[in-house]
Amino acid sequence: MSDSTPATPRPTTTVKVALLGAGNVGAEVARILLDHSTEMAARVGAPIELAGIAVRDLAARRTVELPEELFTTDAEALIDAADVVIELTGGIEPARSRILRALHAGKPVISGNKALIARHGRQLQDAADDAGVPLSYEAAVAGAIPIVRPMADSLAGDRVDRVLGIMNGTTNYILDQMDTTGAQFDDALAEAQRLGYAEADPTADVEGHDAAAKAAILASLAFHSTFTIDDVYCRGITGVTAEDVAAAAEAGYVIKLLAVCERCAGGVNLRVTPTMIPREHPLAGVHGAYNAVFVEAANAGSLMFYGAGAGGAPTASAVLGDFVSAARRLVLGAPAQGAEPHAQLPAVPMDDVRTSFSITLTVQDRLGVLARIAQVFADHGVSIYTMQQKDDPHGTAQRSEIRLVTHRGTNKDLTATVEALRELPFVEDVTGVIRVEHAD
Amino acid sequence: MSDSTPATPRPTTTVKVALLGAGNVGAEVARILLDHSTEMAARVGAPIELAGIAVRDLAARRTVELPEELFTTDAEALIDAADVVIELTGGIEPARSRILRALHAGKPVISGNKALIARHGRQLQDAADDAGVPLSYEAAVAGAIPIVRPMADSLAGDRVDRVLGIMNGTTNYILDQMDTTGAQFDDALAEAQRLGYAEADPTADVEGHDAAAKAAILASLAFHSTFTIDDVYCRGITGVTAEDVAAAAEAGYVIKLLAVCERCAGGVNLRVTPTMIPREHPLAGVHGAYNAVFVEAANAGSLMFYGAGAGGAPTASAVLGDFVSAARRLVLGAPAQGAEPHAQLPAVPMDDVRTSFSITLTVQDRLGVLARIAQVFADHGVSIYTMQQKDDPHGTAQRSEIRLVTHRGTNKDLTATVEALRELPFVEDVTGVIRVEHAD
Repeated sequence: MSDSTPATPRPTTTVKVALLGAGNVGAEVARILLDHSTEMAARVGAPIELAGIAVRDLAARRTVELPEELFTTDAEALIDAADVVIELTGGIEPARSRILRALHAGKPVISGNKALIARHGRQLQDAADDAGVPLSYEAAVAGAIPIVRPMADSLAGDRVDRVLGIMNGTTNYILDQMDTTGAQFDDALAEAQRLGYAEADPTADVEGHDAAAKAAILASLAFHSTFTIDDVYCRGITGVTAEDVAAAAEAGYVIKLLAVCERCAGGVNLRVTPTMIPREHPLAGVHGAYNAVFVEAANAGSLMFYGAGAGGAPTASAVLGDFVSAARRLVLGAPAQGAEPHAQLPAVPMDDVRTSFSITLTVQDRLGVLARIAQVFADHGVSIYTMQQKDDPHGTAQRSEIRLVTHRGTNKDLTATVEALRELPFVEDVTGVIRVEHAD
Repeated sequence: MSDSTPATPRPTTTVKVALLGAGNVGAEVARILLDHSTEMAARVGAPIELAGIAVRDLAARRTVELPEELFTTDAEALIDAADVVIELTGGIEPARSRILRALHAGKPVISGNKALIARHGRQLQDAADDAGVPLSYEAAVAGAIPIVRPMADSLAGDRVDRVLGIMNGTTNYILDQMDTTGAQFDDALAEAQRLGYAEADPTADVEGHDAAAKAAILASLAFHSTFTIDDVYCRGITGVTAEDVAAAAEAGYVIKLLAVCERCAGGVNLRVTPTMIPREHPLAGVHGAYNAVFVEAANAGSLMFYGAGAGGAPTASAVLGDFVSAARRLVLGAPAQGAEPHAQLPAVPMDDVRTSFSITLTVQDRLGVLARIAQVFADHGVSIYTMQQKDDPHGTAQRSEIRLVTHRGTNKDLTATVEALRELPFVEDVTGVIRVEHAD
């Protein structure tokens, strides 16, 4: 269902969006809605209008580069005039009252407010259910990682037994630094603060409160039950020493601040604690400020979802995914369907595409060989990324092996290069012609 | 919205399910629908009835342990009598005609048929859109990994730039074996066949055709366009040698059969080829028969989805996730909402939960110390998983350090154990008391 399938008529009334909050994420959401309004309209099936941005203090608008006339301090009037409400203010009140006001008026709400959802999620969901409109909060758990929807929908036919999550980027950055550099907690925290990964007051992160809120939300979805942040046993990482990290490493473990939600006798236990996990566990490979959620389900087995857990643009992506779904449902009167080909990009054949190659040459070891080979690449417009020569791979001093990785070139040019290399008199063999994906 | 929120009335008519196909996945779907019908009913909001299983040949029913009376060869009659159709037969015809028959009659369809969706997905989706019913095929791409729904919904407000996928478990197993054991392709293939990871005729896997079908489906969703398997440039792994793998390893790379779908000048290029990726890339850590999809999006940044790409139970999980969504929509006349607390499991406090701990003791090195310590654990009903003694950590021969990891015990017992250890006269310090998650 999209603009390119005219068989299905649909309303073209503009969808008016009320944005509450203009922090990191709010400003990014506003920017994307303004800069990419045509794309958004194609995805939703109707024009999108950012009706306004509610802030507590109009002085706040000066910190973000958005049109001044969009800002208002009258959130209630903005909500009443909108079709969809995006709440990105944080805290319990007035966020809760405003979300309830929108839901009671039958307006879909998207929220990224983990503290609120972890505390009053049930009340808000009931209000949404009563009004028959969606309440979505993908952005409230693990930032950009799509986990709320997979948990609620994709795993709806399975039984989740355990959820293990690295759900706070600040603490993962600190522990990862301690693991890779041997730093003490205080030094790693200072470094995280210097780089903007940790706030001046890092309490909510390092004491585990942020991860605990996310764990309560995720466990509610995973176990079809209602948990709040008060159900989560929570210990932070301030007591973890460089010696603990080193001892864990020696034993083949890495220490992560892990949220664990697991079925046990009598129900579900929710905890956030520094936890040793084996180095070979997929979660052990989650470095820096990245987040990941590892799910163990009866039939699906082990699943992992990995991505950026915070940041303006990543979190805005999650907010806008929820927004497009909600708006599409509003416009079409039905949930979104599968592959909607509104972009209709053509498939580009291999010969017109630029990729990198690794190539191994066995050559007779004569003076000037490298120069001649490099010239062949240059003649075909392919530039060399790395080149490595190894003497005597086959036990004869007259031969050597040269391994090259190219920059991106067209398939046609690379094929022609390989053919030309094969014709060089001193080239005995060209092997290992394999594509490479690397940052270049 | 569930049976436990009586405020919302809903029809309680039974949802009749037609299952087409009784292979690995079909048999598993049938088993779960039969064995877990009460749970399924709670999730859907109405009773579920497996109306029948259509097979080509009734002799096939003897290979699976399901009630004989469920089987039929009249797929059309079964479809006509059902409310929801699950197609797990594979191949183009008669699967396509049967899916169209169901969609034209306004019945939601769930399919795991990648060959069909990769070839005729657009036609089937148009039929579903015209009828206003969902066509779902999470099981057709990367087995249990929820990727179709995140791609279609969660990333709907973002711009996907590139998708890199390990989408075939057989070839990943073979390449992983070659990487870790130095085996040649033929030997790794034989091992995969012996373990049931590869079929007797491995062509579709090792030549990349299976991955190519999945790439076409995924790219259609990622780029809001229509691609078929014919748009995918496809090279298999039969030419990859042990020498190639060793050379890649030496250069810091690992070879994977990668599906790459990327925006480029003029559109999107789709390719499946053996590809070298840096060892530090998250996809490099995908071992054995596991699958993973790595997505690069403008705002979300890098995301990865990891899990079992094949197998009866994992794929059945994906089928049933789609089924619950479709059936819930049928019953409620609306898409599924968020946290439906139909299970209402209680939160279990920490003291009643069994977890493992790592504990480090600094002790005066006397005869019988280990026995006394072990006795303390035994007295508190906590068993020891591993114990390691290191002499002289602080440069004095009179002290040693003992590191223990326990089996699971209650928090209460572990706390009491630590307290008792602290009171032992020869114990100087108890440090590094950290929870451990390991298989036990």
